[in-house]
Amino acid sequence: MARTIALLTDFGLEDGYVGVMKGVMRTVCKDVDFIDITHLIEPQNVRRAALALVNAYQYFPAGTIFLVVVDPGVGSTRRPIAMTTENYTFVAPDNGVLSYVLAEEVDRDDADEPIEIVELSNTKYHLDNLSYTFHGRDVFAPVAGHLAKGTALAEFGTKLDQIVELPIPQLTVAGAAIRGEIIDIDRFGNIVTSIGILRWSAPGRLTLDPKNKPEAASVRLMAEDATATLHGNIIYGIQTSYSEAIRGEPLMLVGSSGYLEIAVNQGNAADRFEVTVGDPIEIQLGEVNATIRD
Amino acid sequence: MARTIALLTDFGLEDGYVGVMKGVMRTVCKDVDFIDITHLIEPQNVRRAALALVNAYQYFPAGTIFLVVVDPGVGSTRRPIAMTTENYTFVAPDNGVLSYVLAEEVDRDDADEPIEIVELSNTKYHLDNLSYTFHGRDVFAPVAGHLAKGTALAEFGTKLDQIVELPIPQLTVAGAAIRGEIIDIDRFGNIVTSIGILRWSAPGRLTLDPKNKPEAASVRLMAEDATATLHGNIIYGIQTSYSEAIRGEPLMLVGSSGYLEIAVNQGNAADRFEVTVGDPIEIQLGEVNATIRD
Amino acid sequence: MARTIALLTDFGLEDGYVGVMKGVMRTVCKDVDFIDITHLIEPQNVRRAALALVNAYQYFPAGTIFLVVVDPGVGSTRRPIAMTTENYTFVAPDNGVLSYVLAEEVDRDDADEPIEIVELSNTKYHLDNLSYTFHGRDVFAPVAGHLAKGTALAEFGTKLDQIVELPIPQLTVAGAAIRGEIIDIDRFGNIVTSIGILRWSAPGRLTLDPKNKPEAASVRLMAEDATATLHGNIIYGIQTSYSEAIRGEPLMLVGSSGYLEIAVNQGNAADRFEVTVGDPIEIQLGEVNATIRD
Repeated sequence: MARTIALLTDFGLEDGYVGVMKGVMRTVCKDVDFIDITHLIEPQNVRRAALALVNAYQYFPAGTIFLVVVDPGVGSTRRPIAMTTENYTFVAPDNGVLSYVLAEEVDRDDADEPIEIVELSNTKYHLDNLSYTFHGRDVFAPVAGHLAKGTALAEFGTKLDQIVELPIPQLTVAGAAIRGEIIDIDRFGNIVTSIGILRWSAPGRLTLDPKNKPEAASVRLMAEDATATLHGNIIYGIQTSYSEAIRGEPLMLVGSSGYLEIAVNQGNAADRFEVTVGDPIEIQLGEVNATIRD
Repeated sequence: MARTIALLTDFGLEDGYVGVMKGVMRTVCKDVDFIDITHLIEPQNVRRAALALVNAYQYFPAGTIFLVVVDPGVGSTRRPIAMTTENYTFVAPDNGVLSYVLAEEVDRDDADEPIEIVELSNTKYHLDNLSYTFHGRDVFAPVAGHLAKGTALAEFGTKLDQIVELPIPQLTVAGAAIRGEIIDIDRFGNIVTSIGILRWSAPGRLTLDPKNKPEAASVRLMAEDATATLHGNIIYGIQTSYSEAIRGEPLMLVGSSGYLEIAVNQGNAADRFEVTVGDPIEIQLGEVNATIRD
Repeated sequence: MARTIALLTDFGLEDGYVGVMKGVMRTVCKDVDFIDITHLIEPQNVRRAALALVNAYQYFPAGTIFLVVVDPGVGSTRRPIAMTTENYTFVAPDNGVLSYVLAEEVDRDDADEPIEIVELSNTKYHLDNLSYTFHGRDVFAPVAGHLAKGTALAEFGTKLDQIVELPIPQLTVAGAAIRGEIIDIDRFGNIVTSIGILRWSAPGRLTLDPKNKPEAASVRLMAEDATATLHGNIIYGIQTSYSEAIRGEPLMLVGSSGYLEIAVNQGNAADRFEVTVGDPIEIQLGEVNATIRD
């Protein structure tokens, strides 16, 4: 059965870069299938790529190889790496783009297999005539092809104990206030914040579990009492779905990855509020139902 | 042999939404191949999606499963559905996006198999922890995966007798005038109208068969006598190909789906005439060769 | 094992054109896999497509079929053709889009198999009800499908001895000056020139082998002495990688296909210098280390 290779890059779709990488991979290993996550990461924005990857990877079948190339340091001394977890393999530059996945995998309780990381120092698995500018084609793609073919991770180079880590998205809980930042704006103009992971614990009641902060207690909140402040605009109450707002009206809701989102029903929230990735957002939990810590 | 799943959504290519759906489908059923029809339907424009689907689906191999997710009502009470026809299976929200295909299939004379439709009410085939905002991932993709695996349609939920229907594109024939509307503008700026289906019945002679209007007789017209009026501009004669106009000049022709198109040879007609989808267009058949009804 | 069909068109991704062609191909031959090179060639720009193809095709596995549809003359008298080389098969309109590949293949010393070209005159392998506007769907896709299925080239039509040729990109060497043109601007704003093929022959030393000009001798140059003049701007020295310039500063380097590129480290060179494809560029080799001809 064909092995799945999932691709996430900032290479865009105008140029043939992505197709060339797929050609290289299929030259090495005939029996691979490709799934594109996206190639439209903002050029050289490693953090956006890291967030897109961590929100997507767990929906792929066990055995998937992820080829992640957002690589502003190509040709410099940044290391090319590969990492295996219990279910997946990742091939990427060591610039932090895998650090959110690593944190997620370290947090999992049920992993039987240790996480292993190697530097791709064995040039036997690179293309000849290595360019200085396109390691996606010359290093990462052939390595992904050989991994698909079954070559063991240790063959590709020397073992590493740690990788470059990115700062985790801002999230602080202080009394009745939760402060976060905008981490993404999607095609529909929905504003994704760092405030999560949110789960509906009962009708009208949410639990916020700030998973990237093991030291923080979880917070319970009443959905209708929460208010968001975003560039001076106030939005009342967290809804379950877009359609609970009048068409054209803004709302808060729990996005599909568990993060708080600001949306406009059948409209574009990012345009409406003139926000950009990195902008701060604050949630007030309301006067009566303040935070209840476990 | 791998089953083909064809995708048509408004999810765009910036975010990982489409890749995540493919990951979910391949997790359910290893042996599927994906073909993207488009993911750049104008956000939440159900009618554009319905038109794109009806113009594309018959070119796919028998057995293809179509995953169609343009879903402004996600999280509301709109039903998720699946529909099987003689050759194909469709998975979509019940918001009209399948209605043009259904009308087309009902019109076919040679169908041996009845059309069947179910509401996807059996949550056994949905992902656990259903979100309110991404049923493409949580409902439609896993159902498509299980369909590819061979699960029978009736397993997915309760049978439906009808689905939501969209208004059909405007087309009226009154004396020597045919009135329609612009239904699409393609990448090249070609203007696609609702005036069809047109066929060349002899050199210089066209037959217009208004197929969505069974009550209307077909109309025969002389290609060179037809004139179009579009925002006050007049275009003379229907040509067979772009190259029959001088470079940069506008022309009418019969598009690849049988609809009248306005194009500019090696130029952009939509920019030239400043039109938008939904704008009216009128064809005059000429004084001498008026309509000849069968 | 599935045959790979690689696609390169100007059809864009908004409309379903590409998906429909894939549906047609898979209807003809179930066991094909698709790799998209790009569908975002500037509409009807045959030369950009020819350059994108020649830079990509050699990275694909032997046996790949290339479906190349940039076709401003669709419906006119331009011929549809297919061409086989030792390793690959190409299907395209005869408008020059294959001419750079043909030149490349003619240059190869090691080809055992002769290059063969046919006009796709056998309508048995086209769709019925041929349209005048979408030969990608009606002619090129079904032919590619039948080629994947194993039908011999000679079956598709009459043999051709030559095809339409595009002018080769400008490149002149005169004394210590090399003059070329901008042939591409990629997603990152990197400016690709016609000055190549460049290879690092030793640290700091480059060899320019003007391969498309068999009459020209190769040129050796010292990387640090070269200066580029681009719209009045001067850039000093050819670097090995982006990171050798300060962030935000321009640099010259050897791109991944061996052509001289102008880039800005983590910035956009095309915006900075306000250049467009076709603009001239000149390199001065420096006063001391002038050209040394073999």
